[in-house]
Amino acid sequence: MKKLKFGLSVIGLAIGMATAGVSTAAPAKGPTLSEKVFEETSLLYFQRCAGCHGVLRKGATGKNLEPESTLTKGQVRLEKIIAYGTEGGMNNFDDIFSKEQIKNLATFIQMEPPVPPEMSLAQMKSFTKEFVAPKDYPTKPLHGRNWKNFFVVIERDAGTAAIIDGDTKEIITHINTGYAVHVIKGTEHHKTEHPKDEVGRFWYTIGRDGKVNKIDLWQTPEKMLVAETKMAYDARDIAVSGDGKYVIAGGYWPPHFVIMDAVTLDPLKVVSTRGYNTKGDYINEARVAAIYTSPIQSSFIVAVKETGQMLQVDYNDLDNLTITSMASAEFLHDGFFDPTGRYFQIAANASNKMVVIDTKTRKLEKMIDVAKLPHPGPGANWIDEECGPVGGTTHLGEGSVSIWGNDPIGHPDQAWKLCYEVETDGPGVFIRTHETSDYVWVDQLKHPEPEVQQSVQVFDKKTHEIVKTIRVTEEEGKAALHMEFNDDGTEVWVSVWNRVDASNPTGEIVVYDAKTLEEKHRIKGLTTPTGKFNVYNRMNHKT
Amino acid sequence: MKKLKFGLSVIGLAIGMATAGVSTAAPAKGPTLSEKVFEETSLLYFQRCAGCHGVLRKGATGKNLEPESTLTKGQVRLEKIIAYGTEGGMNNFDDIFSKEQIKNLATFIQMEPPVPPEMSLAQMKSFTKEFVAPKDYPTKPLHGRNWKNFFVVIERDAGTAAIIDGDTKEIITHINTGYAVHVIKGTEHHKTEHPKDEVGRFWYTIGRDGKVNKIDLWQTPEKMLVAETKMAYDARDIAVSGDGKYVIAGGYWPPHFVIMDAVTLDPLKVVSTRGYNTKGDYINEARVAAIYTSPIQSSFIVAVKETGQMLQVDYNDLDNLTITSMASAEFLHDGFFDPTGRYFQIAANASNKMVVIDTKTRKLEKMIDVAKLPHPGPGANWIDEECGPVGGTTHLGEGSVSIWGNDPIGHPDQAWKLCYEVETDGPGVFIRTHETSDYVWVDQLKHPEPEVQQSVQVFDKKTHEIVKTIRVTEEEGKAALHMEFNDDGTEVWVSVWNRVDASNPTGEIVVYDAKTLEEKHRIKGLTTPTGKFNVYNRMNHKT
Repeated sequence: MKKLKFGLSVIGLAIGMATAGVSTAAPAKGPTLSEKVFEETSLLYFQRCAGCHGVLRKGATGKNLEPESTLTKGQVRLEKIIAYGTEGGMNNFDDIFSKEQIKNLATFIQMEPPVPPEMSLAQMKSFTKEFVAPKDYPTKPLHGRNWKNFFVVIERDAGTAAIIDGDTKEIITHINTGYAVHVIKGTEHHKTEHPKDEVGRFWYTIGRDGKVNKIDLWQTPEKMLVAETKMAYDARDIAVSGDGKYVIAGGYWPPHFVIMDAVTLDPLKVVSTRGYNTKGDYINEARVAAIYTSPIQSSFIVAVKETGQMLQVDYNDLDNLTITSMASAEFLHDGFFDPTGRYFQIAANASNKMVVIDTKTRKLEKMIDVAKLPHPGPGANWIDEECGPVGGTTHLGEGSVSIWGNDPIGHPDQAWKLCYEVETDGPGVFIRTHETSDYVWVDQLKHPEPEVQQSVQVFDKKTHEIVKTIRVTEEEGKAALHMEFNDDGTEVWVSVWNRVDASNPTGEIVVYDAKTLEEKHRIKGLTTPTGKFNVYNRMNHKT
Repeated sequence: MKKLKFGLSVIGLAIGMATAGVSTAAPAKGPTLSEKVFEETSLLYFQRCAGCHGVLRKGATGKNLEPESTLTKGQVRLEKIIAYGTEGGMNNFDDIFSKEQIKNLATFIQMEPPVPPEMSLAQMKSFTKEFVAPKDYPTKPLHGRNWKNFFVVIERDAGTAAIIDGDTKEIITHINTGYAVHVIKGTEHHKTEHPKDEVGRFWYTIGRDGKVNKIDLWQTPEKMLVAETKMAYDARDIAVSGDGKYVIAGGYWPPHFVIMDAVTLDPLKVVSTRGYNTKGDYINEARVAAIYTSPIQSSFIVAVKETGQMLQVDYNDLDNLTITSMASAEFLHDGFFDPTGRYFQIAANASNKMVVIDTKTRKLEKMIDVAKLPHPGPGANWIDEECGPVGGTTHLGEGSVSIWGNDPIGHPDQAWKLCYEVETDGPGVFIRTHETSDYVWVDQLKHPEPEVQQSVQVFDKKTHEIVKTIRVTEEEGKAALHMEFNDDGTEVWVSVWNRVDASNPTGEIVVYDAKTLEEKHRIKGLTTPTGKFNVYNRMNHKT
């Protein structure tokens, strides 16, 4: 069994937390680890477990792992759970962690959790770097490529973003970003003040280590990385304001969001998201799960996972900052706008609900009961013959797609009610379609069987039936995930991870004909390619 | 030297914190206390020191008292500072604490501060009590008294509020409230929906122990206390919404504000105030210093001491709560509206500034440099012959009153600029006037000399000169503070504390003729009478 290799950016993360004064735990009454092993295991926990269980281990999508819960289970039982998973939704890790690592993790979670440090605005500012001065930005693209059909692709375990030419399928460059980038976002078409032809030119990445990078697609490949900063020790999402002036990123730790100058990445404003959940309990680790920019309001949408609060943040005046906090349900995860851009639809996964907020009235619009642990990823909107405009989500907890009406003006009877459900072979993470396509694509990444995990399914918008199950890869240890259409909707790009050799460029993207559903091309040499962002589709909200 | 006696409510406070699971500190490397003495001293610190230095001892108006700061000073030096005070503004406590208590406090502050527990909305709800059912509230006053000239008077160290008939000067009753009530507020004239003749009928007290009590002035004396709840372990301020539907109270610990049903006191919504200060540093102990209700907007104003954030909280929709956070200066303390009710003027005491916010545009309007440590208490507005409408403040740090123009529409050249300053004999806490009066009254509670501390000064609105220094009391250990006018402005009521016998009814209120400035009456039998609230003046904003 292979040990994980961590890139430089991960070491930087560990150093960053250590030098910032992370307090190591006083040994609890139970088992202990040496200081060195405690630190190694703390990092492993942070990278692989904290996402679901929290840095403070209070539990979120995953269970509470504080000593009061874990000491009664004991070393042997905990090792088994980590190795083989549970019926409750816990993954197996015996193919990823060594026996030694599993043993240490089982011990670590019986000890008091170390509390990571805060990060001040002054610290963030000290991390800001300029690689290309704004005055030296080119005034037109410096390459002859069709940059609006570029794909910006997260290479998760390499800590890089690949820029791929959608026309030629060439990998143009790999850009150093933060570790395990979760999301990349560009400027979008909006009631925008910045030059129309520049929309989609600048892209912003957020690493799991809180590192923010700015990419200029007009540059020559070696100069595309133009600026960098760091706004947290642990982060997940980022967005660009409609006027192109600001970038906002959300921290898992510290639990806050930071608004930066979109030109220089200079951090301007930091706002804590710590607060009370919908039941009125105080949550210290109130993590920003997701951040979006409203296409029709001068607002950011900030989803706070543990508190179930949907924040609408008006970015017109950062010194006198107005935020509406809409109480919804726990735990918020990821979402997407309806086609009009007025309503935002987001998964409250542990509540098995899709939450809908109205960004015009700034009120909770509706909560829709769906299947177990909804997870739409970038989501999908399309037109259904009976229900009119609909949105859909996959689920982490079961092989099912829930589809609901999302047009309260034109189809009030169907709005925010389940229209139909599609049964798939396994639970998935991502759903995707395109306005030109007859089909909706879903992955099945969360199914334990390789055959299912390696297949995506395609269903027909008209018949609601699955028309094809596509085995994207058959190689051992590999899995298929995340679909993205090209600019004109004629191709669908699907990622393939190499789960057991995650940090080497042995992953790929498989390109399918969107009409015939036949394979067209394989783009090799990618390291755990994950989210893929087509410039044209993302800047025009073509989902 | 006398030991402090604590009433039942204080014991309740200690028990409340203990049973809620306050974590006692692990002994630091320095000196330690036995568990019993640690707990006693922790309570003493909380009662007498935490206000300025913070429960977590990070410092605010007072200095940082964490072990890193205190261990280098050492036991002997710390005892001296506690006993005799400092030039920097620290009070002397040798007349209040025993030698043993001073010794223990000096040791306590060299140990790690214990972190008090959180309080959930469910806990708050469990504290709510109904003494008179709303259906049994009388439909007209049950006594023949002129209740609109009642004074509701805080009896600080007794944990009671005295109701005094302003016409007859009789103490009608003493009502059990929280410990050391800081502020009492009633319903005010507003664009109000509740019956006009009921305005000023209900009063709400907030104890230092977070206890909230509702008083009905139409009741017979023994039934005036109609409801109770508790929203924090430590609190300072309270307000009633303009529509009379909600009561809001602010916590020092936990640092949050709570919106309650004004009828039943049922806690409905809790919002954390933890967050970043104006420099971008995270503040865990971000205390609500003051809370007010806007006379012209459907908004509460919440001043967060350590973060310098002025929050305007829209109470129209508690589930979708909109808050504008205006960054101003640290550390916010207390304030008052201008005569139009549009602008709110508040002291940022450690910044030596008066902060002005515009509640209409929800923006910071101005910051005015004033003298050292401004403290206006309830504040004072009047008309100056040259500057037009003005506001004024006393200062904790020096014997000076700063007066500024506050009419940006009618007198734009004078607005938010110092108009003049009046030198007084000593630093004070309260300033007060009335629209019918030629004079402005200030106290000098912060001066160490008994003669000055026992005198209030009166200056002329026209000449700007001090016309009289009134020695309110000459008794040893007594001090004069806080002025309030009666309903028609013909009398000024001044409080007298017995500092050394604070918990017995040996304090008094001295009533002066507002025109001749001669003494008219002494109301005896009061325990440390502090803030006094005349029903008519407070409900009509007559300052």
